[in-house]
Amino acid sequence: MNFDLARSIEVLQRSPATLRALLEGLGPSWVRATEGPETFSPFDVVGHLIDGEETDWIPRARIILEDGEQRPFEPFDRVAMFEKSKGKPLRELLATFELLRIENLQTLDEMNLTPELLTKRGTHPELGIVTLRQLLSAWVVHDLGHVGQIVRVMSKQYRDAVGPWQAYLPILSR
Amino acid sequence: MNFDLARSIEVLQRSPATLRALLEGLGPSWVRATEGPETFSPFDVVGHLIDGEETDWIPRARIILEDGEQRPFEPFDRVAMFEKSKGKPLRELLATFELLRIENLQTLDEMNLTPELLTKRGTHPELGIVTLRQLLSAWVVHDLGHVGQIVRVMSKQYRDAVGPWQAYLPILSR
Repeated sequence: MNFDLARSIEVLQRSPATLRALLEGLGPSWVRATEGPETFSPFDVVGHLIDGEETDWIPRARIILEDGEQRPFEPFDRVAMFEKSKGKPLRELLATFELLRIENLQTLDEMNLTPELLTKRGTHPELGIVTLRQLLSAWVVHDLGHVGQIVRVMSKQYRDAVGPWQAYLPILSR
Repeated sequence: MNFDLARSIEVLQRSPATLRALLEGLGPSWVRATEGPETFSPFDVVGHLIDGEETDWIPRARIILEDGEQRPFEPFDRVAMFEKSKGKPLRELLATFELLRIENLQTLDEMNLTPELLTKRGTHPELGIVTLRQLLSAWVVHDLGHVGQIVRVMSKQYRDAVGPWQAYLPILSR
């Protein structure tokens, strides 16, 4: 499937409500569960998505539109949220993510992106030349990937509890 | 983490709203997308979860409580929904799943499961002897696994669109 702006927004605008439905009110044994040291809990993932709204997707789209390839993106700090989320209730993080996402989709709308603008190029500090279309596609998949991570982390808390069913539940070995 | 009935219900009761937030109103290019022939689309997954409510989890819990090991479970038809869901709008499937889940959690509550009852055993047609605790754990992980499947299937529609970002998006190679 080719990139389509309207279809991308369909997904991006749903992520805050999806995370809220999945996580809000869940106990800490799910929300704070991880896959081991240095891995993300569902709580950490929400903080990481907030960081993405603040420093990654729309800021990089702006760099592409304003400066093109000549100004590389700032490197994205994948673990900034370990510090920034500390002590905050999950409810607050979910609300912050929702608010930032609404604002960023508003900004995206105001960019009036045409097919020509979507071919504009920028420089990723590690990946090299990328297009605005690729950046926005990656934003969509990044959301979906982290929803997938959350349900995987939660699943693994019951890896032993399912007993023989482990053979039928491939998420437990991902 | 050990099985805990209240914690399991926390997850099970959220799945209908999670699926609704993720999928309701999405266009067919996402909802009907698959990973290739004979694989499930998000639409198919919702139908499969409905089948689970109707014929798998609670019916099997009843068999364990009433007949124990002596009566093997009916085999679960993993693809029944390809026919049963045909022609139905996704909105209807989501509503059906929600209703059945509410009813089944009500039934679960009425079973008044004690730690002793949770150790009761049944016979899975392929996996052999399983406990009620394992069955209920598998119900939770089955939900989470299928949410993970939905976001993976959706992600893969943008595998090419993300360009060089594919290297940073592991959900695209799962």
